[in-house]
Amino acid sequence: MTKTQHITARHVVIKSRPDSALMPEHFEITETQLPALKPGEFLICNHILSLDAGFRQWMNAGASDNYLSEMPLGEAVQSIILGQVVDSLNEDYPTGVYVVGRTAWQDYSIADGSDLMSIIDIDNGVSPEQYLSALGPSGMTAYFGLTGIGQPTACDTIVVSAAAGGVGSLVGQMAKILGCKTIGLTSSDEKCQWLTTELGYDIAINYRSATPLLEQIQQAAPDGVDIYFDNVGGEMLDTIMQHLALNARLVLCGAISQYDADKDTGIYNLWQLVTKRARAEGFMFSDYVDQYPQASQQLAQWINDGLLKAPLNLSYGLEATAQSFCDMLEGKNTGKSLVILKTPQ
Amino acid sequence: MTKTQHITARHVVIKSRPDSALMPEHFEITETQLPALKPGEFLICNHILSLDAGFRQWMNAGASDNYLSEMPLGEAVQSIILGQVVDSLNEDYPTGVYVVGRTAWQDYSIADGSDLMSIIDIDNGVSPEQYLSALGPSGMTAYFGLTGIGQPTACDTIVVSAAAGGVGSLVGQMAKILGCKTIGLTSSDEKCQWLTTELGYDIAINYRSATPLLEQIQQAAPDGVDIYFDNVGGEMLDTIMQHLALNARLVLCGAISQYDADKDTGIYNLWQLVTKRARAEGFMFSDYVDQYPQASQQLAQWINDGLLKAPLNLSYGLEATAQSFCDMLEGKNTGKSLVILKTPQ
Repeated sequence: MTKTQHITARHVVIKSRPDSALMPEHFEITETQLPALKPGEFLICNHILSLDAGFRQWMNAGASDNYLSEMPLGEAVQSIILGQVVDSLNEDYPTGVYVVGRTAWQDYSIADGSDLMSIIDIDNGVSPEQYLSALGPSGMTAYFGLTGIGQPTACDTIVVSAAAGGVGSLVGQMAKILGCKTIGLTSSDEKCQWLTTELGYDIAINYRSATPLLEQIQQAAPDGVDIYFDNVGGEMLDTIMQHLALNARLVLCGAISQYDADKDTGIYNLWQLVTKRARAEGFMFSDYVDQYPQASQQLAQWINDGLLKAPLNLSYGLEATAQSFCDMLEGKNTGKSLVILKTPQ
Repeated sequence: MTKTQHITARHVVIKSRPDSALMPEHFEITETQLPALKPGEFLICNHILSLDAGFRQWMNAGASDNYLSEMPLGEAVQSIILGQVVDSLNEDYPTGVYVVGRTAWQDYSIADGSDLMSIIDIDNGVSPEQYLSALGPSGMTAYFGLTGIGQPTACDTIVVSAAAGGVGSLVGQMAKILGCKTIGLTSSDEKCQWLTTELGYDIAINYRSATPLLEQIQQAAPDGVDIYFDNVGGEMLDTIMQHLALNARLVLCGAISQYDADKDTGIYNLWQLVTKRARAEGFMFSDYVDQYPQASQQLAQWINDGLLKAPLNLSYGLEATAQSFCDMLEGKNTGKSLVILKTPQ
């Protein structure tokens, strides 16, 4: 008999599908009695939930693709989590170890070792929060997107959208370490200030200011944009396409502007990729899983050398999760959004 | 004193700019007395004009970019030509040699060795027409787009738009030689027949037929499209993006559907590049100029082995040029469109 039979788990589930903008009222908290573990399964007590904008798309009806399927109504919202194994019928994941993987917005999860699950070493000087930011999915997304697709050189000018977000806040710092001129796009003067003073961006642009974005980009990058790290898609991507340098690389990481179904915006300047012999390429951090060890080592080194900060935007408790996720989609956060459920003992 | 002072040259010039579709009446033929050659210049008697859809875009007002500038009204239309040097003040281009380069729709051109100008060997078994098709800009565009950007393997399914055109007719054959499954898109059942019987395409799709293109593509490529060689842009590109295989490559070669200014169509499925970890990349054949010798050797080999045909769509005389160019933009041609002005002696 396993512990699960005594546990009532709490979940944040999708109550209804968003017609347009996602709101906290699309979610509710439910409770279920956990079933007994089957052979190969283990029980995780979740300590931290990682809020990642990319998961937004699978909340829409019919949003299945190679990566995930449409999230069913009434079921817990899928998410990357960090937690501790507290019961186990899987010898590879014994009771007591800490894991990071994809389960859901819930206080307890049953897992079987699939879904990107891996054991982490909580005693090596890396904080649990860092495992879900600079050394987690956001860090890997920033690192592999920048180095693998963006291929920066010290002569390059890079523009990063959602620059104050969980991924963007890391991309700008990494690009700076690699010698680029860095330009961050964000939604307020306050966040612009934060980008330049806290994260070392060379230039920060408030895309909501009165001056058109294209004009601001032309001024900030007079020779054109060599790398565009795109977390936003839509109109912003279309604007940047009008000011590319020769042989530009567009790192297609996310399309936060496009997840709300009624906002699909066309791209009218794709032809610029021919004129500028430029490349636009999509990726998922999980494609690079065999290169995680080297990347982790590099990122930990930068953190230890004081070159890379992992800014956090923390919320507390399952109840705060839906609101915090919606706030992030609206760009209210600076840094990586995490929900703390429990502090490791 | 040079010969030019005795020569009246005839030119096809842009008379007015197209508001939408380009028509023969946007052009007229003018005559000018050629000026004396300056030091470094030479006079070319043009034998063949190459009609390339890409030049269409620079006929629009304000269409300047890194490659060319807006073509001025009243001046001869820029074009790749093949001709013979008949007078010269440039010792690198002596009288009698044959050249290929970018001058204009005219019977005589003055050049200085820039603008992609190179001397060709007219006696090596390669016909002058082949120098402007399979071994010229169209051949190099097909070869470097396919091998450099598309990077085909024998497991790949490739879709080629404007498959019966000057570039597309070569891409399909090259991809077949390299082991791909080849699917050609064209505008009539007659051309479909030609693609499969004459050029060896595995499947030809008439995108104007009653069955929606997406449905036809899904049927022809059940596992998705690995490579899309795009000569068309716009709605067709947007449709193909909905059926990409993982790690697909989109070779952005041309946007023939977009050159008529009132037809700008948005791309709504760019996000598929993230989901499918796919790459879209533009290029110009002239970027690969240092690799021409190897490419020429490979292409000549394929031609001599009977593996690669260079189908031609010939017109005759300067008077026929504008009509033939407009016909090509409408997809009335099969194979490479050339205008024969003079047969080499």
